[in-house]
Amino acid sequence: MNLGQVHMNGGDGETSYANNSFFQEKAISLTKSIREEAIISLFSKTLPRSIAIADLGCSCGPNTLSVISEIIIVVEKFCQELNCSSTEYKIFFNDLSGNDFNSVFKSLDNFKVKLLDEIIKTEMGPCYFFGVPGSFYGRIFPDRSLDFVHSSYSLHWLSKVPEGLDNKGNIYISNTSPSNVVKAYYKQFQKDFSIFLKCRAEELVEGGRMVLTIIGRRNNDPCDTEYLCDDWEVLATALNDMVLQGFIKEDQVNNFNIPHYYPSPYEVELEVLNEGSFVINRIELFETDISASSDKSDFDSESKMSRLLLCDKIGYNVARCMRAILEPLLVSHFGEAIIEDIFNRYLEILIDQKPKERKNSVNVTISLTRKG
Amino acid sequence: MNLGQVHMNGGDGETSYANNSFFQEKAISLTKSIREEAIISLFSKTLPRSIAIADLGCSCGPNTLSVISEIIIVVEKFCQELNCSSTEYKIFFNDLSGNDFNSVFKSLDNFKVKLLDEIIKTEMGPCYFFGVPGSFYGRIFPDRSLDFVHSSYSLHWLSKVPEGLDNKGNIYISNTSPSNVVKAYYKQFQKDFSIFLKCRAEELVEGGRMVLTIIGRRNNDPCDTEYLCDDWEVLATALNDMVLQGFIKEDQVNNFNIPHYYPSPYEVELEVLNEGSFVINRIELFETDISASSDKSDFDSESKMSRLLLCDKIGYNVARCMRAILEPLLVSHFGEAIIEDIFNRYLEILIDQKPKERKNSVNVTISLTRKG
Repeated sequence: MNLGQVHMNGGDGETSYANNSFFQEKAISLTKSIREEAIISLFSKTLPRSIAIADLGCSCGPNTLSVISEIIIVVEKFCQELNCSSTEYKIFFNDLSGNDFNSVFKSLDNFKVKLLDEIIKTEMGPCYFFGVPGSFYGRIFPDRSLDFVHSSYSLHWLSKVPEGLDNKGNIYISNTSPSNVVKAYYKQFQKDFSIFLKCRAEELVEGGRMVLTIIGRRNNDPCDTEYLCDDWEVLATALNDMVLQGFIKEDQVNNFNIPHYYPSPYEVELEVLNEGSFVINRIELFETDISASSDKSDFDSESKMSRLLLCDKIGYNVARCMRAILEPLLVSHFGEAIIEDIFNRYLEILIDQKPKERKNSVNVTISLTRKG
Repeated sequence: MNLGQVHMNGGDGETSYANNSFFQEKAISLTKSIREEAIISLFSKTLPRSIAIADLGCSCGPNTLSVISEIIIVVEKFCQELNCSSTEYKIFFNDLSGNDFNSVFKSLDNFKVKLLDEIIKTEMGPCYFFGVPGSFYGRIFPDRSLDFVHSSYSLHWLSKVPEGLDNKGNIYISNTSPSNVVKAYYKQFQKDFSIFLKCRAEELVEGGRMVLTIIGRRNNDPCDTEYLCDDWEVLATALNDMVLQGFIKEDQVNNFNIPHYYPSPYEVELEVLNEGSFVINRIELFETDISASSDKSDFDSESKMSRLLLCDKIGYNVARCMRAILEPLLVSHFGEAIIEDIFNRYLEILIDQKPKERKNSVNVTISLTRKG
């Protein structure tokens, strides 16, 4: 376990879900060497005729194809260096059935052409693409049908809200949450992550590799304010305001919780060891910072105008990211009618407040091999 | 070759693309026994542990899942009768990347649950679903990865408009089309269907089965008015009206043709024999009639009101079916600005005219086995 590769760049951090794609892009870039090592190790052992790669929780944004193109480039370069023939690629894009697969599929039209023309510039093996709808907390692929599994920024989502929570006024783990709320969240993470590992163990071939990046936390205390999520605090404020103004009943907010958990590297490692099907090659903790994000300078500005201009950016991203993720949860709990109001308030609070300290995104990356 | 199973039920026929899903549903129902024979023959030979089934040109309407559920039911009943264990299903839905895969994937959520609860009512093998974007006039699956291929109401679409057509005032084969237009369309069909067979031959396992239903024609003359398509005549009228009124240049309409071909059973058979990878088990010609369609009575009514009410129905279907299919073609040729006008005129003509005689949909169904 190597916790040395930690990137600390100041105290600024995640301001909204809108930045998730930025953080994910950074995370993908920072974990490139881990995937590279895994894919080369996998490929060099047998020089397979065909390789099946799955991206779990692929989403539909700009990062969806970047990992796949990176993996293909690594394999093709390796083949060129060894002067061996290329391989056949079977690429599987998985996400929940509500994901915008149409957008993923449309972006594939020119993917291979661009990859060939601009990067590889030589013949490559045939490439077949598949969309796979369904929850990765269940079986989604046939037995031993995958060689390489990748997942980034998805496994912090739980399969469901832990049952029987009494988390008054909060919508996630907060420093005012009772200890049994924290325990229930952790228990749900253990159960979900264990099922995830068990399913992938059945779907991967022996010696198959898996590289997972999970939004996590540095230390073992899930209530440490350093790692609490600003987004949920802002959303909780919006919902609690609506309770005070009589738009939502207090009970409704008390019963609403986000199915999310940010594990520590230790918690991730423990589940892998308990499940028992995988060897841990590497587990790393790193932080992505917001200092390179253009949004940050806008946000840091004292000027109300700068922050109003940012409103459009965030609005757009909220619509695409946060709403896409949260709307089904919020609609099923609070009903369709007040959704606009919730997101408008969320946006207002985000624009009006200038957080004194924003937190970096902390990531746990683990590289695994399916045991023989 | 058995042309005996022909269904002739009066002279009414296809009034619009809006009826395609009705005709397709009828065609699927009429070809059930052919698929049943093919799947049982395939399954009973080896009782495979796993079976890979592809629906090519799956679209996203109500018929998308019906063939798949029918095949699963046939296999499950067969297993129950033989008291042997069920199989693993790998189901692949293919269509062009512009298809609404999101809608297909969402409808899968309850598919297996319903299938189990309402029909099979016993345990069945695991079922994995995949979306496969891309043209079936190219390779879309790995070598020998499929056991059963189905395609219905898709192969009459050509990969492109034949080159160098001089088809003044028409947008498809018409009885005023010059003979070289007819030849060019047939040549394109031969080329496309041959490539389709070659690709599927590489993707299917030896002994793998394929059942194709193609909108076709009864006799060998592609210009026979009995089999010309009302839809294209109506669309051509709309476009020619717009030329007369100065909204479109004459040259633009002269250069616009639909990439469509309705083959005869003989033409289908000839390509299969020429390509050489498949044994023909059955080839059948049948007609689906409109007499059971509720639209027909509306359309037959002299009442303008009835036909105006029908406008909504057609409008809805045009939006979903005809526009989905034709809009990209029309936009790339005539530009975005006049699309609404084209479809409004198309709809107007359809509502105002009461065709004296509408034609049945003629279908060619062929059942094939991949040679060893």
